[in-house]
Amino acid sequence: MALLSNLTSFLLSEMKLRFSDMLERAWEKQNSLLCVGLDPAPERFPARFKNSSHPIFDFCKSIVDVTADLVCAFKPQIAYFSSCGAEEELADLIKWIHQNYPDIPVILDVKRGDIGSTAAHYAKEAFGRYEADAVTLSPYMGYDSVEPYLKYSEKGAFILCRTSNQGGDDFQMLDCDGEPLFLRVAEKVKEWNINEELGLVIGGTYPEELAQVRQRLPKMTFLVPGIGAQGGDIGAAVRSGMRTDGKGLVINSSRAILYASQGEDFKERAREEAIKTRDLINEARRVSK
Amino acid sequence: MALLSNLTSFLLSEMKLRFSDMLERAWEKQNSLLCVGLDPAPERFPARFKNSSHPIFDFCKSIVDVTADLVCAFKPQIAYFSSCGAEEELADLIKWIHQNYPDIPVILDVKRGDIGSTAAHYAKEAFGRYEADAVTLSPYMGYDSVEPYLKYSEKGAFILCRTSNQGGDDFQMLDCDGEPLFLRVAEKVKEWNINEELGLVIGGTYPEELAQVRQRLPKMTFLVPGIGAQGGDIGAAVRSGMRTDGKGLVINSSRAILYASQGEDFKERAREEAIKTRDLINEARRVSK
Repeated sequence: MALLSNLTSFLLSEMKLRFSDMLERAWEKQNSLLCVGLDPAPERFPARFKNSSHPIFDFCKSIVDVTADLVCAFKPQIAYFSSCGAEEELADLIKWIHQNYPDIPVILDVKRGDIGSTAAHYAKEAFGRYEADAVTLSPYMGYDSVEPYLKYSEKGAFILCRTSNQGGDDFQMLDCDGEPLFLRVAEKVKEWNINEELGLVIGGTYPEELAQVRQRLPKMTFLVPGIGAQGGDIGAAVRSGMRTDGKGLVINSSRAILYASQGEDFKERAREEAIKTRDLINEARRVSK
Repeated sequence: MALLSNLTSFLLSEMKLRFSDMLERAWEKQNSLLCVGLDPAPERFPARFKNSSHPIFDFCKSIVDVTADLVCAFKPQIAYFSSCGAEEELADLIKWIHQNYPDIPVILDVKRGDIGSTAAHYAKEAFGRYEADAVTLSPYMGYDSVEPYLKYSEKGAFILCRTSNQGGDDFQMLDCDGEPLFLRVAEKVKEWNINEELGLVIGGTYPEELAQVRQRLPKMTFLVPGIGAQGGDIGAAVRSGMRTDGKGLVINSSRAILYASQGEDFKERAREEAIKTRDLINEARRVSK
């Protein structure tokens, strides 16, 4: 079994499967649009991890192992690792996912935004050092801040468009020559999408905006945070954002799944919560199609 | 001498000197607005570093030691360290600067942009783990992405406003109800500046925009990249951006100083280039006052 898994992993890396292809296959094969966000906060871990020498890796691995058959992607958020010097644990975690669940893409949530050689170094960090399949990026610095990532033609990048937080209104809703800034970002990302590996981040808390962007970009993949702990309505997000074939969304839930329980039943409860979320998403897909 | 330096370092950390005060003192005492950006690219290091076990730390330390009396700040760019797993070298470098040059603030160039608990983890990374005095941030996600940094009331944060790259035009120049987005960002940052520790990043390649923002924000500090290797005109940037007292700017040069020579004379040439840049800045300050 391990040999088969290693062989698959080797073949996949040799084939350099494109991120978008991995995602299409995962949506289909897993029948799931759910992405589990890996935001490890040690103070919320169950007591059993107190004595672990690598608590962050061990906790995340537990969550990955009990949810891998329920998801289309995993999304580690890098700040939770780098704030406490857990870079090796992040690298080991992504390696674990690639080796054991080679069909599930890893989106490294970094929200980088810099240009030229600096952006090239950030891209090397995400795709070289950590071997992520995709990243998240900020659009504020424009094309030069996305271009270095396009050189990795088989890798994906999700650009912040309409974010799920309240402060997102500060700039994203400003009227730019007759339409809000976030729609200008969506239009630019459409232009930049030469490899067809770019996507957008659009909060599940704003179903109307999801619908507006979907109307303009019928094929693009949207990464949707803001459901679960942040309170977005899953049904509304799915109905507004999905492609006509019922796919096209990567719907993220982090804390609601990771910390469903802080007791010894944390794995069972995380799995239950992931099943519940996946099923709510699938119900909305069925009703809408 | 080492004892005195350690004592000063201890006292400074006990006093929790505000970033803005450190900067005012450094401008005055050093008579310099120059910031040396630390962007270590090992392939551009002189041959002597080939056999070093910590080439990134050793190279940056050499640059710091020969320029510390010429600058008002140092600005390490984190991607150059994280792309090759040199987190410990970054921590050691900042520690080296604090211990040996306690009057010189360290701006950690991270351009983070995230919200809530994720932003809190990024802040912990910069101010806790690395003990930076200030950071750079992206504004796209709005107030929630800056607020977690404001809790470190003595620390600074420079928000991207008008960046020095060509692609900066993609969004920053969009007309938002009669004025370009970057001016909207400047106005918002003015509102958010409760600790008076926020500044703006405005490229030296755009002196007109520097002047526009200075007119609205006569006291705020601007971090100015884009001179040196990126080709901005130092004189125009200084004339357009400085406060009426001839200060208020942190003018960054990275590659032009770091890689002035790749030979054995790299330290002398780096120092010469730093002196030349500082003096060009000071000449423009004198002429304009």
